[in-house]
Amino acid sequence: MKLKVTFRPENVEIAALPGLTILELARRANLAISAVCGGRGTCGKCLVRINPAPPAGPLELKRIPAARLAEGYRMACQARVTDRDLEVEVPDESRLFNLKVLVSGLSREVAVHSTLRKYYLELAPPVIEDQRSDWERLRDAAAGRAGLRPAELEVGIYLLRRLPVLLRENNFKVTAVLANRRLISVEGGDTTEHCYGVAFDLGTTSIVGALLDMRTARELAVAHRTNPQTSYGADVISRINLTLQDPDGGQRMRTAASDALGEIIAELADRAAISAHHVYEVVVAGNSAMEHLFLGLPAGSLATSPYIGVCRGPVTLSARRAGLRVNEDGFVRTAPLISGFVGGDTVAGILAVNLHREERLRLLVDIGTNGEIVAGNREGLFCASAAAGPAFEGANIHNGMRAEPGAIDKVRITDRVEYSTIAEAPVRGICGTGLLETVSELLRVGLLGPEGRFRNDSELAGLELPAAVKERLVDTPGGRAFRLDPETGVAVYQKDVRQLQLAKAAIAAGIEILLEKMSLETSDLEEVLLAGAFGSYIDPAAALRIGLLPPVRPETIRFVGNTSLAGARLMLLSTELKDEAECIPSLCGYVELFHEKDFMDLFVEKLAFPTPGLP
Amino acid sequence: MKLKVTFRPENVEIAALPGLTILELARRANLAISAVCGGRGTCGKCLVRINPAPPAGPLELKRIPAARLAEGYRMACQARVTDRDLEVEVPDESRLFNLKVLVSGLSREVAVHSTLRKYYLELAPPVIEDQRSDWERLRDAAAGRAGLRPAELEVGIYLLRRLPVLLRENNFKVTAVLANRRLISVEGGDTTEHCYGVAFDLGTTSIVGALLDMRTARELAVAHRTNPQTSYGADVISRINLTLQDPDGGQRMRTAASDALGEIIAELADRAAISAHHVYEVVVAGNSAMEHLFLGLPAGSLATSPYIGVCRGPVTLSARRAGLRVNEDGFVRTAPLISGFVGGDTVAGILAVNLHREERLRLLVDIGTNGEIVAGNREGLFCASAAAGPAFEGANIHNGMRAEPGAIDKVRITDRVEYSTIAEAPVRGICGTGLLETVSELLRVGLLGPEGRFRNDSELAGLELPAAVKERLVDTPGGRAFRLDPETGVAVYQKDVRQLQLAKAAIAAGIEILLEKMSLETSDLEEVLLAGAFGSYIDPAAALRIGLLPPVRPETIRFVGNTSLAGARLMLLSTELKDEAECIPSLCGYVELFHEKDFMDLFVEKLAFPTPGLP
Repeated sequence: MKLKVTFRPENVEIAALPGLTILELARRANLAISAVCGGRGTCGKCLVRINPAPPAGPLELKRIPAARLAEGYRMACQARVTDRDLEVEVPDESRLFNLKVLVSGLSREVAVHSTLRKYYLELAPPVIEDQRSDWERLRDAAAGRAGLRPAELEVGIYLLRRLPVLLRENNFKVTAVLANRRLISVEGGDTTEHCYGVAFDLGTTSIVGALLDMRTARELAVAHRTNPQTSYGADVISRINLTLQDPDGGQRMRTAASDALGEIIAELADRAAISAHHVYEVVVAGNSAMEHLFLGLPAGSLATSPYIGVCRGPVTLSARRAGLRVNEDGFVRTAPLISGFVGGDTVAGILAVNLHREERLRLLVDIGTNGEIVAGNREGLFCASAAAGPAFEGANIHNGMRAEPGAIDKVRITDRVEYSTIAEAPVRGICGTGLLETVSELLRVGLLGPEGRFRNDSELAGLELPAAVKERLVDTPGGRAFRLDPETGVAVYQKDVRQLQLAKAAIAAGIEILLEKMSLETSDLEEVLLAGAFGSYIDPAAALRIGLLPPVRPETIRFVGNTSLAGARLMLLSTELKDEAECIPSLCGYVELFHEKDFMDLFVEKLAFPTPGLP
Repeated sequence: MKLKVTFRPENVEIAALPGLTILELARRANLAISAVCGGRGTCGKCLVRINPAPPAGPLELKRIPAARLAEGYRMACQARVTDRDLEVEVPDESRLFNLKVLVSGLSREVAVHSTLRKYYLELAPPVIEDQRSDWERLRDAAAGRAGLRPAELEVGIYLLRRLPVLLRENNFKVTAVLANRRLISVEGGDTTEHCYGVAFDLGTTSIVGALLDMRTARELAVAHRTNPQTSYGADVISRINLTLQDPDGGQRMRTAASDALGEIIAELADRAAISAHHVYEVVVAGNSAMEHLFLGLPAGSLATSPYIGVCRGPVTLSARRAGLRVNEDGFVRTAPLISGFVGGDTVAGILAVNLHREERLRLLVDIGTNGEIVAGNREGLFCASAAAGPAFEGANIHNGMRAEPGAIDKVRITDRVEYSTIAEAPVRGICGTGLLETVSELLRVGLLGPEGRFRNDSELAGLELPAAVKERLVDTPGGRAFRLDPETGVAVYQKDVRQLQLAKAAIAAGIEILLEKMSLETSDLEEVLLAGAFGSYIDPAAALRIGLLPPVRPETIRFVGNTSLAGARLMLLSTELKDEAECIPSLCGYVELFHEKDFMDLFVEKLAFPTPGLP
C-alpha cells in the first residue's frame, strides 16, 4: 500500500510506506526537524501536528500536554504512517535550520530557536456566558498554542490599550506575536509568514546591519552606514568627552546612533520588500563605549581609570525607548560587555567562532578602531584591547576609504604593479586590506625598509626592480608616496605607512602581553583567527609579513570577517546562543595593557616591521 | 550572671539571663518578630543579625545561606544568650506588624511583608583590580543584603542611566530600594527610615487615599477628593460614552483621575510631613470602569452587552506612566477585576473581610454608585452588581452632600426631630447615612407610607404625632418635603425618597436573586456585612426597616466601612494578601442580574418599603 504524506506549510508531498516515522519522511523530503535526542523520543523537540492524528504512543502521552495531544500534536520521531494519507504541519519551533556560513571561513550548525513566535488565532467573540476579558480570551488561545499555562503569558499596558480595537476591527481573527513569555504584538489577520529580526555590528567607525527571516534564518539583506557620531570625533574618547562637556551631548550621541540604525533598518526593509513593522527583535553588538552611548548610559567613567562602565550585563529595552522604528512593541537587546574596553562586539565574536567551547587553543584578533585580542579555549579565556586607531578601516589614510566598491583591496608587485578593486569598480581609494597588502608588498620587494621608511632615491637606484615599479615611488606635496593608480593618483604615503605601523604595533604588543600572561608560546596557538571590518579576505602571508600577527605557520591563520555581526546574528536566531553569550564575560579574564609595565617597551619594539626573509 | 541585649534600630535594652532565646527576649521587649512556625525553627522567618554572633546551631546551618551566616544572621528562635552582651538588629522583613483595626468592625492580624525593601549600602569605589561595572557593584551588595543571588536582581534602563551620578555624588554610600527582585530606586545616604505607600479607593463619585508607613504599617494620613470625572457625568456610562465620542475623551478621563490621585498624594505627604519621593508603591482599587479609565484602557466594551473589559488581571505600571508624582521609579498596581461590573473594589472588599477564607456563610454588600453584592464562604463565592445610583453617597439628592463635616448623618424622631452632623459642624446638608436614617424614621413614625409617599395633609391629621414633628412635613416649591433643620431649610424631599427607593430596590432585588442562584435562604446567612462610602456607621435597624437588606436578625448585621480602601491597604502591606487578591476572581462566580428574567419583577416589588411592624 502506497500512501501520501503532505508537509505544511511547504506543501511538499512524499510517498510513504506504512511503518515509517514522520521524522524519517521529513528527512527524505529535505525538511529539517529538530531532534536533539536523535529520534529516541526523549527530547520532545520534534512536535508536529498530524491530520488525521494517529493514536499517541506512551512517550507521547508522557511528554505532550493533553491539550496539544487533542489538537493533533505528536512527536515526529514516534508517529508512524499507518493506513491513511496524512497532512503534517511542521511548526516553526520544531524546525532545525542550518546556520552554516553565518561565520565566513568557519562552519557551524545551530538550531534556530528564536525567542519570537507568531500564532494565527481565530477567537470566539465574547458572549454573556463567557465573561473573559479581551486579554484573557487572547491569552488563553495564545498560551495554548505556545504550550504555556495562561498565567505564564505577560503583556504590557501599551498593547492592552490597543487590544479592544485590534480584536474588533479584525473580527477576533488576529496573529499574536510572542517573545518568550510576553505577548509583544497583535496584528489583524494571518501575518505568521512575516517575522524578522535585525542584527547590528555597531562599530566606532562603521555600522553594519543584517536583516534575517526569523523563521528560516535566511539573511535577506545587509546594509551599512558610517557611524554618524564620527562627526563629533573619530575616536571613542572624544565622543565621551562631548557627553561630559555638553549637557545635551549624551542625547545627541544616542540620537545619532539610533538614527543611523533606523536608516539601515529602513534600507534593509526596502531592499527585502518587507515592512519594518514586522521586525520585532534587534540585537546590537558594539564595543563598550558604543553600547553605552546607544543605550543612553553615561559613558564618562569609561574614559578615566579604572575604566568602569555602568552595566556589563545585556540590556533589553523596548524599540520605542531605543528610538528605533520597527514594530512598536518590538525590543532591542545589546550584547553583554567584558570590560570597559572589551565590549559586546568581542563577546559576539567569541560566540561566532566558538572560542569558548573548543578544545583547541586559539587566538582571535578583531581589528577595528580598537583591536580586541582574545586567547584561550573551553577551559578559559583571556582578553585585552589595544588602541589601533582607524587605519585598518581605511580612515586617517590619505586616499583611505571604507571597504566599498572602488576601494583597492588586493595588491601584487611583480614586474609591474597589479591591483584589484572591490566589485571591480573604478578606483576611488584604498581600504584597510589594500593598505596592508601594499605595505606587505613594498616590504617584500624592498621599497620599504624594516623601520618603515620609503627608500630614498639613492637607495632606490641600488634596488634590482623593474623601472615600471621603481617609478611609482615619488616625492609629492604630501610627502614621499607609492602610486598605485597613476591615473587617479591613488597612492600610499609615508604617513599612511606610519599609521599602519602604529596600528599593528599596538596589536602585536597586545598579543605578546596576553600570551605572556597566559604563559603561552606562539607555537602553542593551534589557530589564529583574524576578524574585522576590513571588508575582504586578508592574505595571511601579508599579515605575517607586516608583523600584525606573531610568527605562526601561515596555514594556521584564518580570516573570519565581521565576527561581531556574525555573533549578533547567532544571538538573534538562537535563544540558547543568546544565553551562552551572557555567560561569556564570566569566562573571560581581562588584561589591562596600559597597566602592564612591559607594554610601552614592546609597543615601540613592534613599530618596526619584521626583518625580511619570510616567504 | 546578668547580661544585656540591645535591639536595633529601636535601641531597646533588656536584661537577659544566659540560655534565653532572642525570640523570647524580643517578646519581652514588645518587639514583634515573625515566627510562623511558632519558634520551632522550621519557618526561617525570624532572621536577626547578632553581634557578636553566637555559634550557629544545626537548624541555622541548614536554613541560612553561608553568606548571611558569615554576616552574623541567626534565627531568633534558635540563638541564645550565652556569656556576653549582645546587639540584635531586627530587619524589616523579620518583623510582624499587627494590622488590627485596618478593617473597621473586624479584627484581623496580618504579617507585614511588603514587596518593598530598603538597604543602606557603603560600596567600595571601583579600582583597576575590580572591573565590576557600577550596576554589578551595587547589585552584588544589594542582593547580598536581600538574600538573593546577584543574577536574580533586575534593573531598568532609566535607573541605569542615572546610576553613575547617583553613586559618585554620594561617594558610593547609597540606599537601594527593592521591590521584590527589582531595584527601583537608589538614593544618596541612608534613607531606610522613609518607606511609604499609598492605598486608594478609586470610586465613581469619591476617591479616598491612605498613606502608610511600609515599615510599621501605621496609617499616617487619609485624604479624599470628589472624582473630577464627575464633571463629565455622574455615572459610569456617560463617562465611557465620552471616551467613545471624543477622540481625546479617554486621555481626559485618565488625566482627571491621575490628577486627583496626585493631589491626594501631595496632601497626604504634606500632612504627614514626608516627601512624596519616598512613596514607592501605590495600590488602586476601583470598579472595573474606574480602573479602565485610570489605566487608559478603552472602556467602551464595558458599556454594551456582554460587558467585557480589556483585562481583569491586576495591572502593574510605572508611576511615571500612570502620571503619578511619587518616586519616579515607583509603581502602581490595580486590584484585579471579577467582571465588567464587579471590580477591584469588590475584590479588595472580599479580601478585607476575609469572605473567601471563613467557614461562615456571609453576605457582603458594598454600596457605592453601584451596589456590589457577594455571598459565600471559603468553599466559593457568587457576586452581582446592582445599579444603585449615587443616592447613598448623597448625590442627586436635593440637599445631599458627601459625608463631610456639616452633613446630617444621624436622625431620630421622638417628640421632636433630633439629628447630629458629622464633626458636629453647622448643618450644610445631608449625607447618605442621614438620608437612610431619615427615611427609616419617617417610615417608623408613619409620616411615609410603605409605598414611599409622604402622607398628605388629611392623612397627616389622622396621625398621633407631636405637632413639632408634624409641622416639619410641608409643601415647598420643590415638592412635599420633611424639614430636618428649619433654620437652613435642609430637608428630605419626596423625590429624594424616590431616589432612595430606586437605590435600595436594586440592591434588595440583587441580593434576592443571588441567594436564589445559590439556593440559599435568608436564614442561612450567618453574617451580613454592610460596606460603603457612607462615611459613618449605619444603624442595622434602619437598613432593615427600609428593606435595603433581607430580614435577618439585626445583630447579624455589621457595618464595615470602606472595605475597598481597607483591602487596598492590605494588598499594599502584604505580598501574601496581594497574591491572595489575585486568586479571588477565580473563586467568584458572576451573576448578570439583567439577564435574570425575574430581576425586573423583583426590582418593582422591592420598590415598596417593608410593611411596618419591625422594631
